[in-house]
Amino acid sequence: MKQFNKVTIIGVGLIGGSIGLAIKKRNLAREVVGVFRHESTLKRALKCNAVDKATMFIESGVNGADLIIVTSPVRSIPNIIKTAAKHAKKGAIITDAGSTKAWIVSSVEKSLAKSRKIHFVGSHPMAGSEHAGVEFARADLFEKAPCIVTSTTATDKASLKRVIKFWGSLGGKVKVMSPASHDKSVSLISHLPHIVAFGLAGSVPLRELQYAAEGFKDTTRVASSDPELWADIFLTNKREILKAGRLFENYYKDMLKAISKGDRKKTVNFLKKAKSKRDALVYGKESR
Amino acid sequence: MKQFNKVTIIGVGLIGGSIGLAIKKRNLAREVVGVFRHESTLKRALKCNAVDKATMFIESGVNGADLIIVTSPVRSIPNIIKTAAKHAKKGAIITDAGSTKAWIVSSVEKSLAKSRKIHFVGSHPMAGSEHAGVEFARADLFEKAPCIVTSTTATDKASLKRVIKFWGSLGGKVKVMSPASHDKSVSLISHLPHIVAFGLAGSVPLRELQYAAEGFKDTTRVASSDPELWADIFLTNKREILKAGRLFENYYKDMLKAISKGDRKKTVNFLKKAKSKRDALVYGKESR
Repeated sequence: MKQFNKVTIIGVGLIGGSIGLAIKKRNLAREVVGVFRHESTLKRALKCNAVDKATMFIESGVNGADLIIVTSPVRSIPNIIKTAAKHAKKGAIITDAGSTKAWIVSSVEKSLAKSRKIHFVGSHPMAGSEHAGVEFARADLFEKAPCIVTSTTATDKASLKRVIKFWGSLGGKVKVMSPASHDKSVSLISHLPHIVAFGLAGSVPLRELQYAAEGFKDTTRVASSDPELWADIFLTNKREILKAGRLFENYYKDMLKAISKGDRKKTVNFLKKAKSKRDALVYGKESR
Repeated sequence: MKQFNKVTIIGVGLIGGSIGLAIKKRNLAREVVGVFRHESTLKRALKCNAVDKATMFIESGVNGADLIIVTSPVRSIPNIIKTAAKHAKKGAIITDAGSTKAWIVSSVEKSLAKSRKIHFVGSHPMAGSEHAGVEFARADLFEKAPCIVTSTTATDKASLKRVIKFWGSLGGKVKVMSPASHDKSVSLISHLPHIVAFGLAGSVPLRELQYAAEGFKDTTRVASSDPELWADIFLTNKREILKAGRLFENYYKDMLKAISKGDRKKTVNFLKKAKSKRDALVYGKESR
């Protein structure tokens, strides 16, 4: 039996398109509908088969859907969900793919508070790339990707279970946490790397970049991400990002201080500690 | 005609091994000899054919060599060159592959000042990876890699030409500059990314890393580099690194200030400027 009869994806770019491809590849729904803001994206999405049907209207798009996934930029999510909820059928589940959760979840729970007929569960599949656009969509984008699903006192537990199962079916490594815990974690492992990469690419004079090698390119890869999108992510997770930012700044400054003092032992220790954590992440052990 | 009769590589790891493989593949020398400090590395280098002959002694290794390339860690380079020069034949060219140049070049020029028979030219092929060791050596490592060769008032121009030709034959994009200009450039495009990556990997608590995705991994890739090696690179290019570090810190702090004030326009501008430079580097244009 399929998990859903009709799934509607609102805002079909890299993430939404990859969800569409993945649902269809794994046969999880009878029908995948995409809702678009621009006709050009709609055409591209149909061309790469990311959705079965496409519309420019939320109202008709969500009509009769069991699962509605909002994959538009962070800032637009609460309003889109408010509109979608008005036209969704009773018992429909709405989820999102936004990179911050506390702001989105609290906004949505406030706007849906009066209605018991719609169930919202926050999601953040941690996959993607510096490229935006449905033409970069891949059915395997979520395979082995960490995928965080949020739970609050207002979360309907049956809907939570179905959303967990859904991301799991797409290959994600699902983890349930509160919106606040999510925001703290991602401020450190996703938002901070973006801040640092943007800072690095922004601060080095353009004329020097002609000699830049792979190290510079990799360290700044995520600085090629969309500025509007990421500004909103940073601004909707401001408090945690500022905390994470201070953590980095302290380490960075202490490391430079050791260098400026010519303290080789301390410098080596700062680098060793960093390497051991990075190796633990990538090679599964704390040092080589 | 081959460029050299005998080339000796001292300290054969990733860089030295790749030079050996590249020379042999392109048939640039009649013989490639490796000088090793550890027998285990010697055996691994012979196994992967990085050199034709191997020895543990600098004296016999450099005997009769036309070109001597010192690819040992930065800190060891001046002393190794001093020893090598004593046993090298008249007219031999010595170069290195160290990541800082002013400290190395001035130390070497001082120690070779009395002898006119040996010609030193500083080099920095900007290739490599976070992996160390001759088993990662690749004949194509220098293809399209920026390769900086230094020139000073003490540099023998005929030897400079031969060293430029040599790196060009290995596929490198050669650029000649002064040791000071080199150190300034690489402080920005190579050393600073390492500092920032070490800072990021070092500051994020290990327990958070279980959810880290590709963005974190790429941004911190170079933090898996060798701590002892990089501490010495930082310490021998201290002044320029501290300057580059301040440049980054200012951009980073201003960006966080814009975020903390909730100033969307300013935040977007910081990110846009960063993206446009990174895109210019990677996609050859200033924005997508």
